[in-house]
Amino acid sequence: MVDRISLDTLNGLDRAAFVAALDGIFEHAPWVAEAAAIERPFAGIADLHAALMAAVWARPEGEQVAFVAAHPDLAGKAARAGDMAAASVSEQAGLGFDQLSDDEYARFERLNAAYRARFGFPFVICVRRQTRDAILAAFERRLGHDRPTELAAALAEIGYITRLRLVERVEGPGAPPVAGRLSTHVLDTHKGGPAHGVRVELYEVGASGRARLKEAHTNADGRTDAPLIGGVPLRAGTYELVFHVGAYFAARGIDLPGQPFLGEVPVRFGIDDPEGHYHVPLVATPWSYSTYRGS
Amino acid sequence: MVDRISLDTLNGLDRAAFVAALDGIFEHAPWVAEAAAIERPFAGIADLHAALMAAVWARPEGEQVAFVAAHPDLAGKAARAGDMAAASVSEQAGLGFDQLSDDEYARFERLNAAYRARFGFPFVICVRRQTRDAILAAFERRLGHDRPTELAAALAEIGYITRLRLVERVEGPGAPPVAGRLSTHVLDTHKGGPAHGVRVELYEVGASGRARLKEAHTNADGRTDAPLIGGVPLRAGTYELVFHVGAYFAARGIDLPGQPFLGEVPVRFGIDDPEGHYHVPLVATPWSYSTYRGS
Amino acid sequence: MVDRISLDTLNGLDRAAFVAALDGIFEHAPWVAEAAAIERPFAGIADLHAALMAAVWARPEGEQVAFVAAHPDLAGKAARAGDMAAASVSEQAGLGFDQLSDDEYARFERLNAAYRARFGFPFVICVRRQTRDAILAAFERRLGHDRPTELAAALAEIGYITRLRLVERVEGPGAPPVAGRLSTHVLDTHKGGPAHGVRVELYEVGASGRARLKEAHTNADGRTDAPLIGGVPLRAGTYELVFHVGAYFAARGIDLPGQPFLGEVPVRFGIDDPEGHYHVPLVATPWSYSTYRGS
Amino acid sequence: MVDRISLDTLNGLDRAAFVAALDGIFEHAPWVAEAAAIERPFAGIADLHAALMAAVWARPEGEQVAFVAAHPDLAGKAARAGDMAAASVSEQAGLGFDQLSDDEYARFERLNAAYRARFGFPFVICVRRQTRDAILAAFERRLGHDRPTELAAALAEIGYITRLRLVERVEGPGAPPVAGRLSTHVLDTHKGGPAHGVRVELYEVGASGRARLKEAHTNADGRTDAPLIGGVPLRAGTYELVFHVGAYFAARGIDLPGQPFLGEVPVRFGIDDPEGHYHVPLVATPWSYSTYRGS
Repeated sequence: MVDRISLDTLNGLDRAAFVAALDGIFEHAPWVAEAAAIERPFAGIADLHAALMAAVWARPEGEQVAFVAAHPDLAGKAARAGDMAAASVSEQAGLGFDQLSDDEYARFERLNAAYRARFGFPFVICVRRQTRDAILAAFERRLGHDRPTELAAALAEIGYITRLRLVERVEGPGAPPVAGRLSTHVLDTHKGGPAHGVRVELYEVGASGRARLKEAHTNADGRTDAPLIGGVPLRAGTYELVFHVGAYFAARGIDLPGQPFLGEVPVRFGIDDPEGHYHVPLVATPWSYSTYRGS
Repeated sequence: MVDRISLDTLNGLDRAAFVAALDGIFEHAPWVAEAAAIERPFAGIADLHAALMAAVWARPEGEQVAFVAAHPDLAGKAARAGDMAAASVSEQAGLGFDQLSDDEYARFERLNAAYRARFGFPFVICVRRQTRDAILAAFERRLGHDRPTELAAALAEIGYITRLRLVERVEGPGAPPVAGRLSTHVLDTHKGGPAHGVRVELYEVGASGRARLKEAHTNADGRTDAPLIGGVPLRAGTYELVFHVGAYFAARGIDLPGQPFLGEVPVRFGIDDPEGHYHVPLVATPWSYSTYRGS
Repeated sequence: MVDRISLDTLNGLDRAAFVAALDGIFEHAPWVAEAAAIERPFAGIADLHAALMAAVWARPEGEQVAFVAAHPDLAGKAARAGDMAAASVSEQAGLGFDQLSDDEYARFERLNAAYRARFGFPFVICVRRQTRDAILAAFERRLGHDRPTELAAALAEIGYITRLRLVERVEGPGAPPVAGRLSTHVLDTHKGGPAHGVRVELYEVGASGRARLKEAHTNADGRTDAPLIGGVPLRAGTYELVFHVGAYFAARGIDLPGQPFLGEVPVRFGIDDPEGHYHVPLVATPWSYSTYRGS
Repeated sequence: MVDRISLDTLNGLDRAAFVAALDGIFEHAPWVAEAAAIERPFAGIADLHAALMAAVWARPEGEQVAFVAAHPDLAGKAARAGDMAAASVSEQAGLGFDQLSDDEYARFERLNAAYRARFGFPFVICVRRQTRDAILAAFERRLGHDRPTELAAALAEIGYITRLRLVERVEGPGAPPVAGRLSTHVLDTHKGGPAHGVRVELYEVGASGRARLKEAHTNADGRTDAPLIGGVPLRAGTYELVFHVGAYFAARGIDLPGQPFLGEVPVRFGIDDPEGHYHVPLVATPWSYSTYRGS
């Protein structure tokens, strides 16, 4: 990992050093930092990022296309051949794109080929903000775009990618939002207080099944000690929380049927905004529950 | 199928004909009908059944054990060998006990053997009131009983079995409850009225997965035209209703995120009382829902 | 009360007898029935009413105004002087317009005068579909209309008035909707079943206070034996149901604080559609409740 | 107001100065502080209070009665005549006991007389933890106690009274809980987020009517900027929150009926624990709401 640098320091560097300090954030495009350098000093990291992206948006279409085209295919040959920028390597590995089955690899190859044939540049998406299924859905959906819409979509994704990289490289005030939060809270309205000791599991739900991401137990306030997800972007996609309320109410000594009405309560929900706060509470008795997007 | 006979006719038959008319309801035990015959006339079918069971409960323990022992093993050799009373054959076939895998067959053989070794009679359960998983759970649980408790449990199950058979054989007033009901109702509190056109799926949830039992769509009153289950005992077990509310709200033209918060809403619940009414409504918006055991 | 007449009979009368049979339904306007007579026979009462109203809507504006102008002022001198059509007398008495205080009488006089000055005809409203407060609110609101809008509003109200009168006068198939329904249902999700024995009070809520309309107790199914209101139009207005859940849970023997969290639960709601079904359930524990417009 | 003194300072004073510093906390009873002085040093204020109360509980019954008897009647002659300890004066004034009508004064006189006749000491209650109605209810209820139970109840109330006084007099670590909290949160599940700008009113509900305590508007997070009540004991009693959701949804531009289903939503609830946290959220659409005791 590259050492972090402060925004103050960045503001004071000479131009070449400034460009060097931001190397790799915009892939194969030192001209982005060059253009933004003259806007210094920046009061916050979000301002710096906005200036970098403004430099991209200011270019004529042909140069924007060339810029996008310098990005690697998603789950493509570059990933297998080890021919990607370091940041792309670790980002794609996060979703297991370096370990696809041959079938999955073939599917991505097919989508990549169709996309390149249609638009003339590779499919770019900020993989850290998506589940694997959401990426496939976005791939299919974006294949239906016209070219100007899709070029804008690709640049917007590069904005998300570089915003995350920049926040990791630079420290200082005025950071843009790069993390979401998923939290829960279990209320027991049979006794009229927080439900303490409820086992909660979090699953990612994909087309081919569920993958468990996390398990936690509620504390005396009915919450988990830490957010279920925090400090990183939420991956857009479908999730399921499973609340083990049957075991909880049994442990409280409540008289339940042999086959309780509520045992494991699944709450399936979608996350659309990776930087949003999703609070998904459960208000339950042995015979009822409600949930909602809270705050 | 045997023709049905009216309670009136039964009340007027001579003793031998009465016993013959009830043949097969209590397996290999014509003495049950013999004993009840002298209590005639019966005002209702439930009274007839109570008299038949009273004859069983009146016998000394040794005879009760012999009576239970005349029942076939569950999913046992008799089922494979075709050596069971006709009613038992069709009841066990209803859960697929005539088509078990070798592994499952072996598991039942093991449980049957352990049970016989412990109690000296076969495991009897009214299979039409249970899912396959619930039967296995009951098997394990009842192996922990002491012998008097378990003999009473076996006789109670024979009560359930024969009650169902009797209601199918005899027509007339005063029938005992032999059917449960599962119903639902979807309310849309975004618009303030019943949700029309919501796809609802019903699954049985077992240890090894879910099996879809039924699919329906809500009508203009937010209900399904017929109960999800009705006219038969509910099988005690775990179920899941899946409400396709995402598609419903999208069809209503509501502005939803690309990844809606609620798409398919699963409601998992247990049924404990096969003759009960389980009303499981969903009160939903695109951002919230609640459910409860209603009536 | 005038004897009811069947639609069949009406269809077969000569014209003069038909007009006579409908006398008083459209005030001082036998020409309405005259015009509709030639459309006979009518398959249903709603069709008959539609034909009568069509005769009104077909007239030129001047005649429509004269027709409206033949109606008495609401709570006006005619009511005090006994100079109204019989049907109007009993309809206005239903809201106590024959027993206003001098202040209230003066307020209506003021509104009536302002309305007549603006539109040239009296304020007409179907009082059986409104609470007194709703009438005052409608009065103020309709004073802001332009004249064509208000003439249409007055005729629409005459449609409601005459529809009610017609259904009371004529019996037969195809009756139009003239009754709404208000019902409730109390579910106890602490125990998982209907709440039996909950005292429920219904109040009309007006600007100057609440007036109790009804009291009932829930039966074994958690409902009241009869709808809280049924068989008549609901009066548009504001209502409050008060559910005595504190006493109910205490009677169930649940351990509650000295000062229970929930004692009397008020649910205040508006009725806008006098012919609608308002189902207002309460799903409650000693620590929570929810309500919604159900069906 | 007396200056506050630190626990450290108290720990270091000579005995006479310690007693003087606590003068007036236990009314007319310097012996309480005398007895506790030898237990010094105290690590926290709660420990100091426990030692003071232990000194009271250690006395024989006769002295305890004499101690209680030195307290003034509630709303009694002493209050009118200006003959009470300074702290009692301001505490009783908080509920308006210095400004009772002649009727109310007479009712208290009657209760005080009955109580004194029965127990031989005055009715003592920590008025800062009760609404006026709750005090009257407690008065009636405690009149039914036997004498030992009631003496203990009176001493427990003196514990509450002196705990509050002590926390105001002494500053330092380990303070006992003397404040409760009432908060709310409004979620709009029509749009899927916090409801911003909802007017919320808080009323105390008494036998003779409602008194408005507070009004607030929800902020962007759906909460009020400050707790509805905080920093003081909650007065045990009955309250009502009124949420103006009709105006809120109308302002959001939602298409509502002329007479909206929900306009002002009252939520009536009891507070039993003056030092507790009562979180009373509202989860609402234009057609539904739920509330519960949250945390």
